Amino acid sequence: MTSLKNLESFTCPLPLRDYRNIVMGHGGGGKLSHDLVQHLFAPLFDNPLLAPLNDQAVFAVNGARLAFTTDSFVVKPIFFPGGNIGDLAVNGTVNDLAMSGATPLYVSAAYILEEGFSLDDLTRVTVSLAKAARRAGVQVATGDTKVVEEGHGDGVYINTAGIGLVPEGVNIGAANARPGDAVILSGAIGLHGIAILSQREGLKFDSEIVSDCAPLYDLVAQMLQVTRDIHTLRDPTRGGMASTLNEIAEAARVGIEIEERAIPVPKDVAAACEMLGLDPLYVANEGKLVAFVPSELASAVLEKMQSHPLGREAAIIGRVVAEHPGMVIARTSIGGTRVVDMMVGEQLPRIC
Amino acid sequence: MTSLKNLESFTCPLPLRDYRNIVMGHGGGGKLSHDLVQHLFAPLFDNPLLAPLNDQAVFAVNGARLAFTTDSFVVKPIFFPGGNIGDLAVNGTVNDLAMSGATPLYVSAAYILEEGFSLDDLTRVTVSLAKAARRAGVQVATGDTKVVEEGHGDGVYINTAGIGLVPEGVNIGAANARPGDAVILSGAIGLHGIAILSQREGLKFDSEIVSDCAPLYDLVAQMLQVTRDIHTLRDPTRGGMASTLNEIAEAARVGIEIEERAIPVPKDVAAACEMLGLDPLYVANEGKLVAFVPSELASAVLEKMQSHPLGREAAIIGRVVAEHPGMVIARTSIGGTRVVDMMVGEQLPRIC
Repeated sequence: MTSLKNLESFTCPLPLRDYRNIVMGHGGGGKLSHDLVQHLFAPLFDNPLLAPLNDQAVFAVNGARLAFTTDSFVVKPIFFPGGNIGDLAVNGTVNDLAMSGATPLYVSAAYILEEGFSLDDLTRVTVSLAKAARRAGVQVATGDTKVVEEGHGDGVYINTAGIGLVPEGVNIGAANARPGDAVILSGAIGLHGIAILSQREGLKFDSEIVSDCAPLYDLVAQMLQVTRDIHTLRDPTRGGMASTLNEIAEAARVGIEIEERAIPVPKDVAAACEMLGLDPLYVANEGKLVAFVPSELASAVLEKMQSHPLGREAAIIGRVVAEHPGMVIARTSIGGTRVVDMMVGEQLPRIC
Repeated sequence: MTSLKNLESFTCPLPLRDYRNIVMGHGGGGKLSHDLVQHLFAPLFDNPLLAPLNDQAVFAVNGARLAFTTDSFVVKPIFFPGGNIGDLAVNGTVNDLAMSGATPLYVSAAYILEEGFSLDDLTRVTVSLAKAARRAGVQVATGDTKVVEEGHGDGVYINTAGIGLVPEGVNIGAANARPGDAVILSGAIGLHGIAILSQREGLKFDSEIVSDCAPLYDLVAQMLQVTRDIHTLRDPTRGGMASTLNEIAEAARVGIEIEERAIPVPKDVAAACEMLGLDPLYVANEGKLVAFVPSELASAVLEKMQSHPLGREAAIIGRVVAEHPGMVIARTSIGGTRVVDMMVGEQLPRIC
């Protein structure tokens, strides 16, 4: 453990890919975000809870195994097809709890308001936040409000932290993926990111693309009824499926192979991505999960997922291999293979 | 409990003192902040945890009594005499836990960074945050980083949430103050607010005024060794002593009488306040607490506090009365009395 004395002499751990100042990509969930965590935060906050680099910490307090997580939401625009920053702030955090198998219990809600933000909009956002909390079965237990001058915020930013209870015998983490595991995706990708982007850029499609923002705990609870032996769960938000799979490959020191054809991409999302030069594998989702389960359990878990409203389009999209640890390889629809790298910078800033 | 249907028809609860938009005072910790909580957040998040309007929620999970709190920090400037936003973010949150008598265990750290913020400053802030966490005996268990464009932030904002464990037999809350209780203040007031203000405005005094930013749990633990029958603890941050005492008077439906002469105000703070037209009772502190204890225990608790480095100047500054419930009355140094009202707007914006 780093001593306090070592902290005194800690200097900026450059090269953090040679940036001296923060750029948008440091918040993008890709390589630059990773560098900050691995070279700055993790060494300074040095503790075994942060080491697994999961989206939540799990620890025991008086015998209760708790999951604890935090996320700030700076999505732009605040209101978008399928939701707003209020329900996003609840779902994002309860999903991070659910990805450890925890039952979400309590969330906090801390607002940073910009001077001049309308009370009507604050009310709309807060109504959505309250409704999302009830839908997810959590209580908003504590909160905070700060106000910053005009030009130092953007209407409203919301931080939520969450506490959940991890059931006995459940031990889910990015590092637990094992060769042989099946990789199951709960549904179509790209909806949240493209919904935000089309709203922001005024793009029109045949039908409106709506964010998939939803609480995933209930789906996870169903999956845990099939087996407690789920190795890894992740919701591919910022950085999309590509970054999520790379994080898991790295944490578990395994290779991952996916079949591009097996990944459900809605027609409109595919069209939008083609038009905008985006790869759907890098686009954010807010109501999807990937699960790594032992292959012999895969079809039972898949079936259970498909019987849930949030898992109807669930599909096995790949498998874990012992080869090329740390790498994600996609078999393309025309039969070739390509390396799916982690996103480097920022594809869509302020997506959540 | 408000039904989901009622939520649908919830509209902006104006008049929130007749503002249609957010003003700086909504973040000041005074009446406007209170209005937001009481007329907007509390009805929407309707639950028994929020009802006592403490700075933390206390609930049981699998038999463990947990305290849970959150605070966002937007202090300006980020670096000030006696600390920076990093240690402030830890101390503010561990103190909110300590004010329930809880042992602080875990904190989260969520950064909202502005594009262009220097990595050197981020490192300095994070080193301070890490050191403060070690000093307070808590682990930084989980975190988040978001980046917003230049002109939509102010260098760095930090949210911390915290989890603590409340010992058996401890039941501390604003509503528990009782007529007859002695009101004990742990030390001199006004230091944090005036330190920030002098830094911001470039004011010079005979000696530098330094923020009192410090973790108070150890002091509370000492006090709890004397008795578990402490009724109320609060750290008078935003809104100062005046707002804190008014909140307690209102929550417990009691009157509070204080002796102005008994309240330690450092000479430089008094001089600065006179010059700036401020009342020290409304200036923020970040390392002080007020305790409400049964009068027969007051001298034992006081003595214990005075033997602690953070309580050396502790003093009994008043008492709780059954008369004028909800009101705070000060006996002035020249023998008169005055009503000490809650702050209405914002005395010093972005103080924490």
